Parts: sequence; structure tokens; C-alpha cells
Amino acid sequence: MINPHRYCVIMCGGIGSRFWPYSRSNRPKQFIDFLGTGRSLLQMTYDRIVPLVSPSNILVVTNAEYAPLIKEQLPDLNEDHILLEPARRNTAPCIAWAAWHIAAIDPEASMIVTPSDHLITREKIFIESIENGFEFVENHDALLTLGITPTRPETGYGYIQISEPVEGCPSINKVKTFTEKPNLELAKVFLSSGEFLWNSGIFLWTAKAIKEAFHSHVSDMARSFDKGVGLFGIPEKETEFISQNFPGCMSISIDFAVMEKASNVFVERVDFGWNDLGTWSALYDNSPRNRDGNVTQNCRVLSYNSSGNIFAVKDDKLIVVDGLKDYIVADAGDVLLICPKSEEQRIKQMVHDANTHFGDKYL
Amino acid sequence: MINPHRYCVIMCGGIGSRFWPYSRSNRPKQFIDFLGTGRSLLQMTYDRIVPLVSPSNILVVTNAEYAPLIKEQLPDLNEDHILLEPARRNTAPCIAWAAWHIAAIDPEASMIVTPSDHLITREKIFIESIENGFEFVENHDALLTLGITPTRPETGYGYIQISEPVEGCPSINKVKTFTEKPNLELAKVFLSSGEFLWNSGIFLWTAKAIKEAFHSHVSDMARSFDKGVGLFGIPEKETEFISQNFPGCMSISIDFAVMEKASNVFVERVDFGWNDLGTWSALYDNSPRNRDGNVTQNCRVLSYNSSGNIFAVKDDKLIVVDGLKDYIVADAGDVLLICPKSEEQRIKQMVHDANTHFGDKYL
Repeated sequence: MINPHRYCVIMCGGIGSRFWPYSRSNRPKQFIDFLGTGRSLLQMTYDRIVPLVSPSNILVVTNAEYAPLIKEQLPDLNEDHILLEPARRNTAPCIAWAAWHIAAIDPEASMIVTPSDHLITREKIFIESIENGFEFVENHDALLTLGITPTRPETGYGYIQISEPVEGCPSINKVKTFTEKPNLELAKVFLSSGEFLWNSGIFLWTAKAIKEAFHSHVSDMARSFDKGVGLFGIPEKETEFISQNFPGCMSISIDFAVMEKASNVFVERVDFGWNDLGTWSALYDNSPRNRDGNVTQNCRVLSYNSSGNIFAVKDDKLIVVDGLKDYIVADAGDVLLICPKSEEQRIKQMVHDANTHFGDKYL
Repeated sequence: MINPHRYCVIMCGGIGSRFWPYSRSNRPKQFIDFLGTGRSLLQMTYDRIVPLVSPSNILVVTNAEYAPLIKEQLPDLNEDHILLEPARRNTAPCIAWAAWHIAAIDPEASMIVTPSDHLITREKIFIESIENGFEFVENHDALLTLGITPTRPETGYGYIQISEPVEGCPSINKVKTFTEKPNLELAKVFLSSGEFLWNSGIFLWTAKAIKEAFHSHVSDMARSFDKGVGLFGIPEKETEFISQNFPGCMSISIDFAVMEKASNVFVERVDFGWNDLGTWSALYDNSPRNRDGNVTQNCRVLSYNSSGNIFAVKDDKLIVVDGLKDYIVADAGDVLLICPKSEEQRIKQMVHDANTHFGDKYL
């Protein structure tokens, strides 16, 4: 029996520009079957949540342009459960809207907020961890984030430094600090200290607790959403209110707006497999390799003297490659990217340059 | 006034496998606008011949499967002037059929035989050279080949060693030997000797002279075509005769079957620009480069730290490339080839491997 006061908010508005051109603004990363399983990352996220939260309590927050993709990929989702942002404003306004919306429907609600484009494995542990987290936030005035036990000195993630454990909750600690991506030296210190966890970007709290946190730390935004009380949950009125008030919200992340400021922040140490698939290299590291040490997405590769590459191609395509090592080859029909994996941080600049020189049709 | 006894045979049956996958068996090199001029190599060949030979005397010999492409690209060509080979048998049977066909129509005929997929520049010199060649073969019992004055120690071409000049014909010499592709050392000796010319694969002769040469040097093939005398020039009968007799011909080149054996072989030294576009490197060397030193075919390229590459892509496609030097990148929609220019001689093997592993749809 699933607790009917538990809700889920799937954040699904990202544009996935780091995977351009395989991920495009009209079909970003979360909508792609990135791992070749037959389900997109969004669908995998939904599937993972269904054992935990009643489908009628699952909300997807996304940019208005992705409504058709959401309906296509999640046909079971009630249309009223898709919250369409009229503008891109990072995670804090997105989460605020969802919290005010859910609180209007169910003042007793607790909620999990999750990205739609991460890879999670060992789902049994995931489910146990989330149930444990729900119980914690339902019984404490707490903002809970999930922290992953690090397995390597990763420089691409944010870290959470833990403080004293919570009595009676062996896997939950008070948070001491949030730390942005460290350099390798520092990451090694973090790893060996045992005091640092990876910040997963998955949160649990009650609607009441997160609303209070918005009031305390981003009060302008909270007051802006308060003006809509009485309209949330009434589709036409809510849509009109949001179209008028959402674009005026500051664009800011939930970490920066709330989590790094609040004093009631806790972290649950979890041990499921997790990867934010934030980079081509992360995707390469998490994907099965063929005999030659290449990773392929949706394509067949005939390779000669080539290894360490990732080939991501839309449609069934044959790639014949000779003498290429450690490259990204991403083909999106009208754009072909060939770039060393070591240079992938430059892809955002390349997208910008392509836009400057050739117009926005390639975004 | 064009001499009405002059004919042209355009050989158009090649499959262009060295340019795979940009050139595919269903649309080989000669049908592609390789130089971005708006005209395919075949169309450029036709355009070049029209000032020399009456359009009603131009024949195209090709494989049966290319008939629709020929009609599309050369709409002025009478359908009866397309000789469709029922099987691929190299150049000797192709030329024999054309010679027997033309001799049946016009016993006084002289003819130029030309590939359809070479690049020729300085067309005024080309026209003068061909007119000069026609006059020579119309007045001598001669098989004439065109020899290009070499400008570099090219190892990719065949060479012709010249013997004594013909009295009264300053640009024409007797041929001493034909030499296959030399190594670099030998090519340098050839170049400095002044005795060697590049073998262009363009021939002139009378129908009578080439038929006699077939009788002398490949008599089986000549007797086979003799059986069709009385049927050539009568479309249905000729087609039926060819379908029964052509496939039985030995697959052999005209050089090997006739030119290297005959004693009445002459070469005209010509100075028009010529390149057989036999390799990606040859195409690269003969194409304008962009600022970065890359050559592009039908595509836009945004390049970073990349030079010496050739990008050949069907349809309008944006290529974004970083850190690639001296590669071939050829995209044909369902196949993408990435291969160092220095390894291009392996492409035939790659085509073979692709066929073995993935079936013939990629040929």
C-alpha cells in the first residue's frame, strides 16, 4: 500500500547541451534512449518511481516545448500532471511551483524531487533508500538530499561534507557544507577522508518544509508564489497565473537558493549505482564496450586501429573508422561532431559558434 | 562544321569503390557533382565532347542498372545511344561492343573513347588536342592514346614511354612501352628523363583499326562480336545478341588486351589539365581548400585544430570537428567513413569487410 501523501516531481526541462548534437534542444538527453535499453532516461526515471509513489501523484515539470514528447513517452501520465514552465529559470522556481502546487492539493504531502536524466542502478537499494528518506522527512523538519558514497576522486561532481549522524537514523547525517567541483588533489582528499559524499541532486522534503525554506531564504520568490494560492490545482487559473508570474522569477538553482543556506539540511548516504551522465566521458565509462574498446549508441561500427571512442548516432547507421583514438563521434543527421573526449568541455562553445555562423537550426 | 564520321564513346560503368561511401554502387563517382560545379563528372565529360562530336554520334556504355541515372543526367542523349552492358567485363569488351556498333552504322567512323569520371581543365587545349588526334587516326593506321606531360613523380598513374616522333606530327610519337604504377624512385627517373608520359585512358582510332586490333590480339572476343554483324544498330536484335554474348567475354582491360600488344600504337602529347580523381588524395589536391586547409564537398565545416582533411557529405550537413588532421570524413547517410588519407588504399578492404559483416546494403 503506497502512502497517498507521497508525491514525486520529475524535473525534465534541461536542454542537454553537453551532448550536442546527439542531444538537441528539440529532443534533449532525457528523452533519448541513451543506454540502448528501449526506454529513455525519463522513462527509466518514471519506471523507478512507480513502486514508490502512486502514478496519480507523479508530476513532471518541463519546458512548454517538450509537452508533446512527455505525452508520447509517458502516455499513462495525466495531462494535468505536466507542469509546463513558460520560461527556463533553473531548478529553484521549478521546485517552488511544484511545491506550491502539491501543497494546494495536499497540505500533508511529502515529495521526492528528481532529475530525469541520471543513470541509477541497483533499483532495489534505490527504493529502500527513498522509502527511508520519506519516513525521515515525514517525521522531522528536514530538507533531505541523497548523497552517494564516492568510489573515485571524481572532479565532475559536487560534494557534500557530512556532520554528526542523526540519532536513530544510521544512514542520515546533518550536512556541514556543500562543495562545488573540486580539483583532483582535493577530490582525493575528499575520497580518503570518508566525510564527503557526491551530491546526487535528488531531494526529499514535505511541501510544508520546502515552502518554509523558500520563505526564509528566497522570500521574493516565495511571496510571488503565495500570490497564486487559491489558483493552484485549478488548471486554467494556475496556467494563467504561472504565465504571468513564473517568468519574473530569478533564475537560480535549488542548491544555491536554499540548500546551501538552510540549517535543517540533512543527507542520506545511499549505495545505489548512480551517474549523472553529465559528460560524454561519463557515458563512455558507464556503457558496455565492444571488443575494440569503443562504445556505440544506436549504430554499428567497423573499426580498425580505433579504441576509446564513443559513437553516438541517430538512426541505424554504419560507421567505418580507422586510426581514431579517444574521440566522440556524434551524428544527428544534419550535424556531425568529431571531437577528442579530452576536449568535450569545449562543446558548449562549439554549439555557440555553430549558432553564430550558421543560425539556430543546429541547436 | 563537325565531321559527321566522328563518334564518341563515354565509358560510364565504373563503380567508384575507392570513394566509398561517398560514391556508392547505386550512384558511383561519375554521377556525383564531385567538384561542386552543379554538373556531375559525366555531365562535364559530355559537355566537353559536344564541340567535337555531333550529339547524335555520342554513345554512353554503362552497366544496365545506371540507365535511369544516365537519362536523368543526360536528357539530350537519345535512348538508343545508351549501350547497357548486361555484366561488368572491364574496358576491352565495352570498347569492342562500341566499335562493332559504330562500324555497323558508319564504316568510315573514327572515334574517341573516354572515361566519364576524370577531371580535365583547359578545355580549349583539350579540344585542339582531340581534333589533332582525330586527324591523325583518320590518316594513319594507328591506335592513338593521349599522354599527359607529367608534372610530378606521381606513383598512382600508369606511364607511357615514347619512341621516335612521327614525321609531320610534332606532338605524336610511337609508343615504346606501357608501364604500370612505378615506385617513387622510378617515378622520379621517369619524370626527369622526359621520355615518359602519364597514360590518360583516352583513346582515338577508327572503328576499322580497333576492330582489326581486336582480331589480331583478342581474336576470341573479336569472333564473338563478329557473330552479331547484321544485328548491331537494330535495337531489339542488338540487345538480345548482347545479352547472350557479352557475359561470355573475358573481363580484361583495353590496355592489357590490345594496347600493350599492338605495334601500331601511338601517343599524342597533350598539355591540358588532367587528373583521374582516382583517390581521395587526388581529389583533395585538386579541390579548393578553405581557410583551415580543409576540402569540403556539399557541407559546411566548423573546424578547430583541424587541417588537411577532406569532408565529403551528401545533403547539406554541418560538420563540427576538433583535433583531426589529414583524414577523410565521408558521410553517405547510412554510412560514415572516418579514415586517415594515408590509409585510403585500405578502403576497398573496408567495403569488403562491411559487406561481409553487415550485408550488401552498404555497398
